[in-house]
Amino acid sequence: PGYGAPAGNDPLWGYFTSIAGQDGEVDAEELQRCLTQANFTGSYSPFSLETCRIMIAMLDRDFTGKMGFNEFKDLMVAMNGWKQNFIMFDTDRSGTVEPHELSQAITTMGYRLSPQALNAVVKRYSKNGRIFFDDYVSCCVKLRSLTDNFRQRDQMHRGAVTFQYDDFMLCTMAV
Amino acid sequence: PGYGAPAGNDPLWGYFTSIAGQDGEVDAEELQRCLTQANFTGSYSPFSLETCRIMIAMLDRDFTGKMGFNEFKDLMVAMNGWKQNFIMFDTDRSGTVEPHELSQAITTMGYRLSPQALNAVVKRYSKNGRIFFDDYVSCCVKLRSLTDNFRQRDQMHRGAVTFQYDDFMLCTMAV
Ligand SMILES: [Ca+2]
Ligand SMILES: [Ca+2]
Ligand SMILES: [Ca+2]
Repeated sequence: PGYGAPAGNDPLWGYFTSIAGQDGEVDAEELQRCLTQANFTGSYSPFSLETCRIMIAMLDRDFTGKMGFNEFKDLMVAMNGWKQNFIMFDTDRSGTVEPHELSQAITTMGYRLSPQALNAVVKRYSKNGRIFFDDYVSCCVKLRSLTDNFRQRDQMHRGAVTFQYDDFMLCTMAV
Repeated sequence: PGYGAPAGNDPLWGYFTSIAGQDGEVDAEELQRCLTQANFTGSYSPFSLETCRIMIAMLDRDFTGKMGFNEFKDLMVAMNGWKQNFIMFDTDRSGTVEPHELSQAITTMGYRLSPQALNAVVKRYSKNGRIFFDDYVSCCVKLRSLTDNFRQRDQMHRGAVTFQYDDFMLCTMAV
């Protein structure tokens, strides 16, 4: 394996390089194509480009708009977790879950949100009172990104962070 | 005019009631339909449902996921401004503007962002290095929402706000 290849024979490496193309990194369009081709969403609708963009933004610490191999692996792990979670709640395989199930899922994932915040989140990601897989994942990505950004700045674990305006926008505009 | 009608004869009122339907409020699907029917985007692609959702979230202070008449009017005013702005930059009418033009537009609108934050924003809303009208508006809506939320909490105009985790999520998850 050439420069940049992972140690050992990672089964995902060949797959990654085939979708990353010349620049060796995956952008939102490439990610969407790859998730569609891999039929990741199965019987559910494919991911929108918007969702793929925030997946990238979640892991893109240097703001290049692209993902390297390690970020790609992190994403796959997170995605598998969210998918299993969604399928668990979508017992009738209708492709949607109910608002109270999204609230439950968020709480199960360990996020502590007030009823008001939970309600706002659920409203935001519902269509006609139900949550589709794409929006569910988009919601999970944002929860994780925003919480990560917050935690990184809350080193004393006070549950409170003082943001300068510019840093606030940097943390929130990309997701 | 019945209960809830505006004083005087507002020309937008009849239009609003026709799209709002029985509940007298406009949700994201209704907004998308109305903007498409009114051909608001003209030769540009119609707005995605995602963009319509964040338009609603920007004005939806009570988190019902819907807009009343006054919010609808506010939105129309803001949208016309953004559209004029975009058209000014899209001189060749290709339907896209360049990254440096989005940076300029953001600065012209009065937002003071560092080069790093501007770069992150531009990367986030670009497709193949260009910015489409839908993404441009989505970017404008988020800039305004997040800045409004920040300012409301920065009553001393210090340029810094201390957020509790729950309030941070409430301010940022819906847009
Ligand atoms: Ca279901
Ligand atoms: Ca309605
Ligand atoms: Ca152009």
